[in-house]
Order: sequence, then C-alpha cells, then structure tokens
Amino acid sequence: MIDYSALFRISYGLYIVCSGNREHGNGFISNTVFQVTSEPVKIAVTCSKKNFSADLIRQTGAFSISVLHTQAAPELFGRFGFRSGRDFDKLAGLDLHYDETTGVPMVTDGSMAVIVCRLEQSFDVGTHLIYVGETVQTRMLDPDKTPMTYDWYRQNRKGIAPPNAPTYVDKSKFGMK
Amino acid sequence: MIDYSALFRISYGLYIVCSGNREHGNGFISNTVFQVTSEPVKIAVTCSKKNFSADLIRQTGAFSISVLHTQAAPELFGRFGFRSGRDFDKLAGLDLHYDETTGVPMVTDGSMAVIVCRLEQSFDVGTHLIYVGETVQTRMLDPDKTPMTYDWYRQNRKGIAPPNAPTYVDKSKFGMK
Repeated sequence: MIDYSALFRISYGLYIVCSGNREHGNGFISNTVFQVTSEPVKIAVTCSKKNFSADLIRQTGAFSISVLHTQAAPELFGRFGFRSGRDFDKLAGLDLHYDETTGVPMVTDGSMAVIVCRLEQSFDVGTHLIYVGETVQTRMLDPDKTPMTYDWYRQNRKGIAPPNAPTYVDKSKFGMK
Repeated sequence: MIDYSALFRISYGLYIVCSGNREHGNGFISNTVFQVTSEPVKIAVTCSKKNFSADLIRQTGAFSISVLHTQAAPELFGRFGFRSGRDFDKLAGLDLHYDETTGVPMVTDGSMAVIVCRLEQSFDVGTHLIYVGETVQTRMLDPDKTPMTYDWYRQNRKGIAPPNAPTYVDKSKFGMK
C-alpha cells in the first residue's frame, strides 16, 4: 500500500531549469535537482517527456539551474510551472545571464545561486527522463537569502506540483483534499 | 569556475537506505533520495560504488528508505554514515521492520516514514550509481515529526557529508574551513 503522505516527507528544493540559447530559450520549475557525484561535480535533473524542455535540453547539450529563494515572486511559478514554452516565451522580460561556454540562459530573478551543466547522460525512467550533466560553472547571486524548499512552498504559498512534475499527486484519485 | 557554496543551496533530506534480508542486512545514510515519476511512483537513490550497499542492493533487488526526523539520535549518523557494513553489522540492536514481499529491512529508529522499492534500473554516473525502484509500500510512522534536512543537519548538528557521499567536498582542496 502506498500512503502518499509518506512521500511528502521526502525533501526537495525548488529550481528553474533552463536550456536553449540567446535567441530561443525555455525553462521549467523543477523540484528534483540533485548532485550525484562530487568528482567531478555532476548534477541530475528530472524532466517530463511531455515538457518542451525535454527536447530542448537534448538539443542544447546543456542546462542551467537557478536556485529559487523564499522571496521569489509567485508569478514565476505560474510562468514556469503551469504554462508551456511551446506557445509562450517564458523568458521574455526576465533578468537573464548567459553562460559563456554553453550559451544557456540563466534566470536570476528570484534566484540566490545558479549552476550550469554540460549534458552528459540521459536515462529513461518511464514518463520522465533523468538528465545528468557535469557542472561547468556555479555562481552565488545572493548568499543571504534562504533557499525555497518544496515543503516551504506547500506550507506558505499553498502551492501544488503541476501535472508534469515527478511528484505530482492526482488528489481526486485518492480522496485527498 | 565552481563556487562550492552555491552547491550547498541545493536542498536535500536525510535518509537511511537499507537492503539485504533478515539474516544479513545493511544500510547507509543518503541525502540523494528523490521521486522521479508519479505513475507509477518510482524513486531514485544514489549510492557510491565503494559502498558495501552498492552490491547488496543489486543482489537484493530491492531497497528501503527511512525518512529521518530532527530528533533522530546522532549515533545513527556515526553508525550508518561513517562505518562500513563489510566489517560491522550496522543493523544490530536497532528497531527494524521487514517488508513482506521483498524481505528488506527498514530502520524505524529516528524515522518518521518508510518507503520500500523494488529495484528496476541502475545507471552508472561515474563514482556513483543511481538506483531507480518502483515503490511497493510506504508507511507513515510518525506524522508529527519534522523531516531532517541536510541543511538542518549542517546547521544544528554541525554534520558533514562522509567521503562516499555524492555531495562530499574535500575542503582541504579548496581552502575552505
């Protein structure tokens, strides 16, 4: 038996994962960003196969991770978590940096640190892909902020995971409120 | 350039990952446990190839995850994080449950929830393996506790990651204190 409340005790941060370039970039909200090795520093991100970013990360061969802080504007979640980059330029009007070597955009709005990875491996786990990249650059933007955790987001913003998230729960199926 | 302080802004929980059976079980402390799909519920754990558990998880074909809470005894970290199951029975004397279908032990000491997965895939990312399993059982042990995060552990227990952890930083290399 699966008690979904137990799964909610796994801890996550919240991030914007971007790929593409200066002409055409895109990003999505992710809670599944994890360092998987330290020598070299490799980081894994999980992405729904339905996400526009799934193809774009592969095409770009790189991705950036923006670590959201607790003062990040709620608007970022609507923009990156609940709309598709197929029919909307999610990066329009935001503060962006571009990585010199890979060219990937990094969102700096609402972010306390950014990490850039060159894509090395992708693993198919069913509905989602795990992308693993070697870190080529990290930068601290605002060390005094507090990283936003998924738990904090649920408690303080009453936020939920969008349907493409690895941790999405269809509450109608389980009689949850 | 890699600023390691930026990597510390990635959020993690803390877990004991166990495998084996009633006669011979073992476990290790992990901070890299994350759900990767929701239909079905699949969970990834990262394990150093040097860990005794790396082989044991494969042999067992299953693993359990105990979600540690903030009142977990410091002794658990010494036992599971800094000693090897090759020369020490890490599970001796602990409160254990055993999963009925897979037989894997679950540590309930210091834990607020347990999750049992049947191993489905393993991915080689260099020094570490990512094991992905389908969840066969979850159980809430103590919903009123607070999950221990790696950030909380670092702040309150002054804990560090052991050398086999995916997030280990050899501070002597980087002039860090």
